[in-house]
Amino acid sequence: MAEPSDGDERSEAELKIMGATYRALCEHGYANLTMQAIAEEYGKSTAAIHYYYDTKDDLLAAFLNFLLDKFIDRVHEVETTAPKERLDLLLDRLLTHREGSRDFMTAMLEMRAQAPYNEAVREQFQRNDEYTRYLLKTVIADGTDSGVFSAEDPEHAADALMLIVDGARTRYASLGDENALEEARRTAREYVESVLMAE
Amino acid sequence: MAEPSDGDERSEAELKIMGATYRALCEHGYANLTMQAIAEEYGKSTAAIHYYYDTKDDLLAAFLNFLLDKFIDRVHEVETTAPKERLDLLLDRLLTHREGSRDFMTAMLEMRAQAPYNEAVREQFQRNDEYTRYLLKTVIADGTDSGVFSAEDPEHAADALMLIVDGARTRYASLGDENALEEARRTAREYVESVLMAE
Repeated sequence: MAEPSDGDERSEAELKIMGATYRALCEHGYANLTMQAIAEEYGKSTAAIHYYYDTKDDLLAAFLNFLLDKFIDRVHEVETTAPKERLDLLLDRLLTHREGSRDFMTAMLEMRAQAPYNEAVREQFQRNDEYTRYLLKTVIADGTDSGVFSAEDPEHAADALMLIVDGARTRYASLGDENALEEARRTAREYVESVLMAE
Repeated sequence: MAEPSDGDERSEAELKIMGATYRALCEHGYANLTMQAIAEEYGKSTAAIHYYYDTKDDLLAAFLNFLLDKFIDRVHEVETTAPKERLDLLLDRLLTHREGSRDFMTAMLEMRAQAPYNEAVREQFQRNDEYTRYLLKTVIADGTDSGVFSAEDPEHAADALMLIVDGARTRYASLGDENALEEARRTAREYVESVLMAE
């Protein structure tokens, strides 16, 4: 098996397999996802996938890592360092439909629900979550240092915002609550303006 | 098949089957839940369960209805009508470990993740959610009428609190985030005090 690459170093084949995994998840959901289904989207044999990923779990953990890198790329597009604007843009990115279609969010919730039983997938979810909370915490702490925010506990504030983000994702996928992302964006705005910006 | 009873009218057998379903979910998770596993917890044959519930989906929808009734019973114990105290107690009940062990929360998240594929289960989840948001909205609207709260939009405020609750349940089960319920209780308190009680 070839060593799977990280970040920008993914080969063209690996990028194509990531795209195929995305499409197969949207089409089949997580419970019915097979290497065969991914291979069909990829247009090659399952052996061509196994060259890079030993097992389906390895592939799924790599896929979550790929999503994290995509998120990091989109965060790098946020060029402003002004804390309030930067936090707003991060929340926009966390709470938009760009994160994927309903089918994809449904598959991701299934994968999350299986995380307790699957160490590789759980650890990658934890890494993605840790990175996102770190970004939020940093901008909240910066903003508190510069007097824009007045967060007593930036780490808790980051956790609070992630509760709202994860609540939205769960509600959107499981209840078919079409407004969940918008309600969450509004709730996050209220939290920032009333809790973090209170004097 | 006997007509399954609602609320207080559940027979002793039905109550025992609900208890057996709870234990089987904790032990096997949702993906591996079988009528046989529930029957073993019940101590009778699967036929004795099918007398009340045609299919596993019927049984699971009845189980979610049973959880709603249990929640309603616990809400009825909240005797105060003072809006702030009543909202605090509702949030306590929504965000405590009394809702169940980690194993149970894990099984419930699995069930939620399957809701998009399962109409009976999804509809019962939606009913439970609707009832809970109705309770929250009512107490927030009452409190706004009496001047304790100043919610511009009680319906949105109820949605905001449910985002926090659902985020906590998802994070607790899927990331193993032991502090999720406490962080959520703290976040809900901040939201109530800074957003709903702002003048």
